[in-house]
Amino acid sequence: MTALDRLRADLAGLTLADDAPTLRMASRDFFWFSPVLKPELEGKVADLVVTPASKDELRRVAAACARHRVPLVIRGGGTGNYGQAVPLAGGVVVDMRKLDRKIFARPGGCRFEAGANMLDMDKMLDADGQELRFHPSTRAQATIGGFVAGGAAGVGSCTWGQIDNLGAVTALEVMTVEEEPRLIELRGREILKVMHAYGVNGIITEVELPTAPAHDWAERIVTFDSFMAAVRFGQAFMECEGIAKKLVSVHDARIGPYLKRLAPYLPEGRAFAILMVSEPQADTLDLLIADHKGEVTFRRGAAEAKAVAFGTHHGRGGPGPLYEYTWNHTTLHALKMDPAITYIQLRFPAPNNVALVEWTAKEFDEDVLLHLEFQRREGKVITSSLALVKYTTTERLNAIMARATEGGVQSSNAHTYVLNNAGWKRIDAPQPEFKRLADPFGLMNPGKLVGWEAASQAAE
Amino acid sequence: MTALDRLRADLAGLTLADDAPTLRMASRDFFWFSPVLKPELEGKVADLVVTPASKDELRRVAAACARHRVPLVIRGGGTGNYGQAVPLAGGVVVDMRKLDRKIFARPGGCRFEAGANMLDMDKMLDADGQELRFHPSTRAQATIGGFVAGGAAGVGSCTWGQIDNLGAVTALEVMTVEEEPRLIELRGREILKVMHAYGVNGIITEVELPTAPAHDWAERIVTFDSFMAAVRFGQAFMECEGIAKKLVSVHDARIGPYLKRLAPYLPEGRAFAILMVSEPQADTLDLLIADHKGEVTFRRGAAEAKAVAFGTHHGRGGPGPLYEYTWNHTTLHALKMDPAITYIQLRFPAPNNVALVEWTAKEFDEDVLLHLEFQRREGKVITSSLALVKYTTTERLNAIMARATEGGVQSSNAHTYVLNNAGWKRIDAPQPEFKRLADPFGLMNPGKLVGWEAASQAAE
Repeated sequence: MTALDRLRADLAGLTLADDAPTLRMASRDFFWFSPVLKPELEGKVADLVVTPASKDELRRVAAACARHRVPLVIRGGGTGNYGQAVPLAGGVVVDMRKLDRKIFARPGGCRFEAGANMLDMDKMLDADGQELRFHPSTRAQATIGGFVAGGAAGVGSCTWGQIDNLGAVTALEVMTVEEEPRLIELRGREILKVMHAYGVNGIITEVELPTAPAHDWAERIVTFDSFMAAVRFGQAFMECEGIAKKLVSVHDARIGPYLKRLAPYLPEGRAFAILMVSEPQADTLDLLIADHKGEVTFRRGAAEAKAVAFGTHHGRGGPGPLYEYTWNHTTLHALKMDPAITYIQLRFPAPNNVALVEWTAKEFDEDVLLHLEFQRREGKVITSSLALVKYTTTERLNAIMARATEGGVQSSNAHTYVLNNAGWKRIDAPQPEFKRLADPFGLMNPGKLVGWEAASQAAE
Repeated sequence: MTALDRLRADLAGLTLADDAPTLRMASRDFFWFSPVLKPELEGKVADLVVTPASKDELRRVAAACARHRVPLVIRGGGTGNYGQAVPLAGGVVVDMRKLDRKIFARPGGCRFEAGANMLDMDKMLDADGQELRFHPSTRAQATIGGFVAGGAAGVGSCTWGQIDNLGAVTALEVMTVEEEPRLIELRGREILKVMHAYGVNGIITEVELPTAPAHDWAERIVTFDSFMAAVRFGQAFMECEGIAKKLVSVHDARIGPYLKRLAPYLPEGRAFAILMVSEPQADTLDLLIADHKGEVTFRRGAAEAKAVAFGTHHGRGGPGPLYEYTWNHTTLHALKMDPAITYIQLRFPAPNNVALVEWTAKEFDEDVLLHLEFQRREGKVITSSLALVKYTTTERLNAIMARATEGGVQSSNAHTYVLNNAGWKRIDAPQPEFKRLADPFGLMNPGKLVGWEAASQAAE
């Protein structure tokens, strides 16, 4: 009897699957955006998929994995791009999506089980005039636990910053992987121990986070003569405190043809911006658009935009929620039309972000197609980009990142599944130390955090 | 029969007053904060106070003033500090406070008659989960028309900027002073024509502005070892997008004794911050306070804070709304205890605002007591100050302002009633041109806008 057989016996009564299609589906995320990760991760599959329906069932899974020393990978919506959800050593994939209860929601804050779908959360919050401050472009698929464990920013970051900012998450509950699993409540900066840690050091079971009182968000597409005209508009919009905003996304004209459903609104050769603005202020936004000689090609009111996003709109035609053309969704649309596309992650820091964008656009004009996401960071306006790249070789990809860094642009490697290499964000985070506590047998998402045993001993 | 007699006859049936106490009260604002303005404006009184109860009555007032060439001054709550409401040439003072109807209020926006009291507006908006984005510390007295005509920023500016930012006001309706008064609707940048113009160029009759979905704002007082520790805390709080905030006000320890009702919470020699934070995030704020070795000496929950501000709290003791100790209310409290106090207006631009504050605190340590209001401006964190000054001479006051300017601090003269001299804000505003249109006989608030006839002709 193998360890897996014994584990399976321990989990009698739970929802298990080991048919090949389910194993394959549950062992993948969007790592295939990367031509570097694709060959490395393709074909790695779990031996068993478990879908616990309650925290008690999850506890049985954690206990059984510990008891039988079976590796496990925790999975939400599987919308990550770094292979976070790919089991490198087989074992169990735990699909968290049935752990989706609302614990509470009140003005300014809510708490959900980690498997809650972010769109469902926003539907629930909406009834009370509240909303998530920000969400990935994959709101319809992503879970809140997955976003905390593998995400960073998104729609709304133009106002509210990043998920790792102090205050962006109020508390996390984490289950340890031990024979007798414990629940640990993390608050304040303790949260950073497991944030963006790909589930290597404990199972996030509940997420408590602040909510924003909701605006009515109208959608706009605006086109411009040149990319830099669009960029300067984006910067000016960001610098305008007087207009409430949820999305400021600026795109190279050459990206237009990849966004097929938006074709009627994207004339050839025109750079464009995709915007979400507080509806009563859309007229004021028009003034700013006119300043920058922009042309509004698509307008959708807040009620319809919400209905489209919530799946309650039954009108004819029209594109999906506009945010599903921004952030890393842009890469998805481009890849559907051109399999040679990939992306890089760039950040243009204040106060020279606009000049750095201009330099980057010129320097890599041949094979990099910039689309920018404007964000607030530490009291400043900055610009980040999940820029499209016409992929040729890994050497060229690395050369672009190296040259961008030389030029003063911050670059983080999107083409690695190793947490330690993932760039600027988590260098100081105490993930290894916490791993020893929450995952003493080293079973969680093996291969993603390298050298943690040494690091945790050195920290003693 | 004098012009005034004929005017009075035209206004039969309206609420008029010309008893000395009413005339005196209606002819004053808080210009006496300034030892320079006090002797210049003391004793200037209107001949008649009119309180129109409707726009039709107001139209009769405007028409009669035009017909009989009687000067008029438009007045809201009279909370200005520059003598805006003081009639330099006698005539009529128009008290707008009965023109206070709600035109509409819906999520994200509202429109009120100009005489609406800002606290009453917030009470009405509160029923729908909305609030004014920002208000002066004089919310309980100020009218929305007066704030637009003579204010600038306030509580909430840490998030939403200034009243003259694009988008901060959606529309203004203005009545001309002609024999047949007209109503003019100003939208977008047109608004700047009459904004902060002290009512020299048309009577603001309605104000439409965006509202914010309301947070539950908790109050805190926090003390620090040193003023600069408090300043650095304030800056860090501002740079923290993850915590929703409404007030970040930082005070020199020497200001504490002037704020008598806060005495229990202000230990001697401790600098302090007065804060309003989204209640569900107050615990997170505590982390930031601990980073800066701050000590929380006063906590008031959002429900109680709102009840205190709305006048519905019937508990015992406790100070008034904390915002009534910030912005220029600080000067009011100080003047009550020490008649030799006055103030200056400083602004510390990004990105060196903290260093500029430190320089200023040292440079003028002897006679300037800084209290800072943190604001967002054009995508950046900046600091402004209505700093207390131990007044000696006008020469010293001017020397402080000149030296501050040399040091890179922006200074605007608070000690002038002449609009042209009032500093950085309105230099490019097309107020003179609009005056010729809206006030062709030059009757409105005479003496406040100098040389407008020449300026409006030069603009042709």
